[in-house]
Amino acid sequence: MEIFTIKEDILSRNNEQAKDVRALLDGKGIFYVNLMSSPGAGKTTVLSKLIPRLSDDFRIGVIEADIDSDKDALAIERETGARVIQIHTAGACHITCQMSLEALQALGTDGLDLIFLENIGNLVCPAEFDTGADMNLVLLSVPEGDDKPLKYPLMFEVAHAVAVTKTDVAPIFDFSFENAEKNIRKRNDSAKIFFTSALNGKGIDELEQYIRSETVRKIKK
Amino acid sequence: MEIFTIKEDILSRNNEQAKDVRALLDGKGIFYVNLMSSPGAGKTTVLSKLIPRLSDDFRIGVIEADIDSDKDALAIERETGARVIQIHTAGACHITCQMSLEALQALGTDGLDLIFLENIGNLVCPAEFDTGADMNLVLLSVPEGDDKPLKYPLMFEVAHAVAVTKTDVAPIFDFSFENAEKNIRKRNDSAKIFFTSALNGKGIDELEQYIRSETVRKIKK
Repeated sequence: MEIFTIKEDILSRNNEQAKDVRALLDGKGIFYVNLMSSPGAGKTTVLSKLIPRLSDDFRIGVIEADIDSDKDALAIERETGARVIQIHTAGACHITCQMSLEALQALGTDGLDLIFLENIGNLVCPAEFDTGADMNLVLLSVPEGDDKPLKYPLMFEVAHAVAVTKTDVAPIFDFSFENAEKNIRKRNDSAKIFFTSALNGKGIDELEQYIRSETVRKIKK
Repeated sequence: MEIFTIKEDILSRNNEQAKDVRALLDGKGIFYVNLMSSPGAGKTTVLSKLIPRLSDDFRIGVIEADIDSDKDALAIERETGARVIQIHTAGACHITCQMSLEALQALGTDGLDLIFLENIGNLVCPAEFDTGADMNLVLLSVPEGDDKPLKYPLMFEVAHAVAVTKTDVAPIFDFSFENAEKNIRKRNDSAKIFFTSALNGKGIDELEQYIRSETVRKIKK
């Protein structure tokens, strides 16, 4: 039983801190996006498609979180020229709000309009920890299967938007867009749903427009 | 700091309990396999291919662990006729040894030779918790990318065997078998590595033979 009590304390402190992070970013007019998915669902690829489309209008920062390796941070820096930092979680399977705050400080928020946090690839734990982000963007890749919202409920419950990725390979996997949408809706009746492919460009315009309009809505406040 | 101290206590208690589970299963001559991977890497599919090939020679039980849904347990029961139970982890992202023990008791170990535990789809947390299994079999699916051992080190360190799955789609993904092997070897210099496809059958014979010989080695003791 004790572990659950401890966990509740940790989560309640985390939620308090998330309010502080939001207040800090609200004060500076910065929109903060927390990108979550399974390993290899396409987080880095989606960022490498979105950032060049958004960087004429917004000053963009990226926090790459991994347990180990700096491969993604190097790729994003090389491909987009955005301000990027890599954080390592020392084995941890998620980003707490404390880590989020320290990463924002290390990145340096001054002069930025839009910050992406690429969370640890994990459909479970990251969903429990509010990072202080304005938007939780969850990716579900076609090869994983359309049943994942049934098995990993919280991740889809906390999503403001879900992007189904790698739709170009749907014909060779047993994946139904209709079932995916139905399963997402079982967990979440308001999240925006996008069907995307980084390969053929499907849905990237729509996802870009959504992030653009949400960012503008915040920074114009 | 406190969270790490607590975690150490939990892990040390867990490791003690894993010894008890091993002693219990050793006494009964049962081989216990812990199957771990990202969500959607093919754990259930691999089981549905292996079990029919092994069930003439071994009496097989399956523990299906999920946060929610009983889809996998129903599929395994329907497709293989093995003795199956579904356990739900109440949100937890991994199976502790206590859960493993309770699941073994609920399944009923009498009369079995070989038990598979299908762990929660997660490349991080399940690796930290010894379930008392004789073998950690880790799946890495081609669509996830060949870099995953770099980013999720512990999972590949604790593996006794790694099966690369969905190799039939390698031509359409940016996945190099050579890099995958190199990256697995960075984490683990002794794990067996299999390249498999449930679709075209590649590597399934070899994986079956490996599990068969390890099972025989134990139950003949």
